[in-house]
Amino acid sequence: MREIIASRRNDHVKLAYCLSKSSSFRKKKGLCFLEGARLCADAAMSGNKTRALFFTPKAEIKYKDYIMRIKCPEDKIYVIDQSIADYLADTKNPQGVFSISDIPYTENKLSGVPRSGNFLALENIQNPDNLGAALRTAEAFGISGVVFGGACCDAYSPKALRAGMGAVFRLGVYTSADMPSAVRDFNSMGFSTFAAVPDRSALKVTDIDFRGSSVMVIGNEGNGIMPETVRECKKCVTIPMSGRAESLNASAAAAVLMWEMMRGKEAGGVNDG
Amino acid sequence: MREIIASRRNDHVKLAYCLSKSSSFRKKKGLCFLEGARLCADAAMSGNKTRALFFTPKAEIKYKDYIMRIKCPEDKIYVIDQSIADYLADTKNPQGVFSISDIPYTENKLSGVPRSGNFLALENIQNPDNLGAALRTAEAFGISGVVFGGACCDAYSPKALRAGMGAVFRLGVYTSADMPSAVRDFNSMGFSTFAAVPDRSALKVTDIDFRGSSVMVIGNEGNGIMPETVRECKKCVTIPMSGRAESLNASAAAAVLMWEMMRGKEAGGVNDG
Repeated sequence: MREIIASRRNDHVKLAYCLSKSSSFRKKKGLCFLEGARLCADAAMSGNKTRALFFTPKAEIKYKDYIMRIKCPEDKIYVIDQSIADYLADTKNPQGVFSISDIPYTENKLSGVPRSGNFLALENIQNPDNLGAALRTAEAFGISGVVFGGACCDAYSPKALRAGMGAVFRLGVYTSADMPSAVRDFNSMGFSTFAAVPDRSALKVTDIDFRGSSVMVIGNEGNGIMPETVRECKKCVTIPMSGRAESLNASAAAAVLMWEMMRGKEAGGVNDG
Repeated sequence: MREIIASRRNDHVKLAYCLSKSSSFRKKKGLCFLEGARLCADAAMSGNKTRALFFTPKAEIKYKDYIMRIKCPEDKIYVIDQSIADYLADTKNPQGVFSISDIPYTENKLSGVPRSGNFLALENIQNPDNLGAALRTAEAFGISGVVFGGACCDAYSPKALRAGMGAVFRLGVYTSADMPSAVRDFNSMGFSTFAAVPDRSALKVTDIDFRGSSVMVIGNEGNGIMPETVRECKKCVTIPMSGRAESLNASAAAAVLMWEMMRGKEAGGVNDG
């Protein structure tokens, strides 16, 4: 029988805790910390190496179907006490399953982006729930890839990973600190580039022809897209609203914009733009 | 100068704390607890009486534009210490502005619902962030009203109120413990009633004619709509997805469904269904 870790001073627990708390530590190590049986299993099955797996004795029974799908060296599997699960968890009632996984794609620069497809570009998104939700929706709608521009929050934080259901492990993810330059690159590759703005004078998203390759840029929750990025986009686009315009959060706006982008692409698509 | 409350044992602080924590206490008192300058001001301006207002000395300066819009009897305005703000807050870095407000509509039974329009019906939604986000989107898209069916989480919890940006104060909100019967009522009033299901054999949302009055039923995050409710709906509707179907959360699905519902209604609308 395995030893049950009950001390916060245990080295594996310390590593897990630091990965859960610090974005810079995650980047330095190239590792992230995952919470939840399904998320841990999904990450493992997406081809990301699981470096360590933690579970409580209770969780080992309850979530055994997920746990058995996670490939992890036997000597990197740790049984933890409930108090350690509570300590490591970001949720109030943790399932008691956690893992440490490689971060994929950290070196994916925009130069490697495919020359066609439909991309979501997120600029300075602050809220990890919004970021995660947008990635999750992007995956559901078959978006080709996501560009993180400017200073987005960390897509590998426990909160963003949970909100995204691990979509970041399965999407093509690219980073660009300089979003205006990224938009110029997309323009020169022949993409239509759209800046999503809450401005009734912009083009309605329902009037846009999304049949070609396109990039939808979505900006910061409070301040929107930076003016220098807007200037590089070929068109400004807005979601026509009959109610209060400010009453659409970033992830709901992203869902509607990606939906419209992909709406007419399917066989038998019904977009009329 | 006003006295600064620094004790958790203060009666007003105790009342606020209980309202923030207990749904049944909120119902009993007909009051809710609001956090955040904008939310407190919005609720007050939506016509809901503010029964008490709390702020820290710092917040009084920083958020004075919001605070001055809140009508509240002078003797119900309390200046609180930062430690009390942290105690009452549901967020990690609270702004330091809180209020106690009447809960509107608690007695709005479905019998009072308008005979036409476009409604969102939420059944057994568990997550207050999802519930709030759906209400916020409903308001943005000009949905006529929202029906809470079955056992939805409390729309007046601090988390749901924040996610909803107080949309619940401005939307027509109705409750029905018996959702199948509510759907039957809508049917008999001539509404088209739709059950949103993650089922590729259901009608595509893009193929639906939403020109008349309609009700979109959205179910529990894990289990979907109850079978007895689905049976009463005239049609089952789904969002066609090219990616992983399970990768769309309840509030993103609600956003897309409401968007499609309202898409063709505007003058010059472009819905073709």
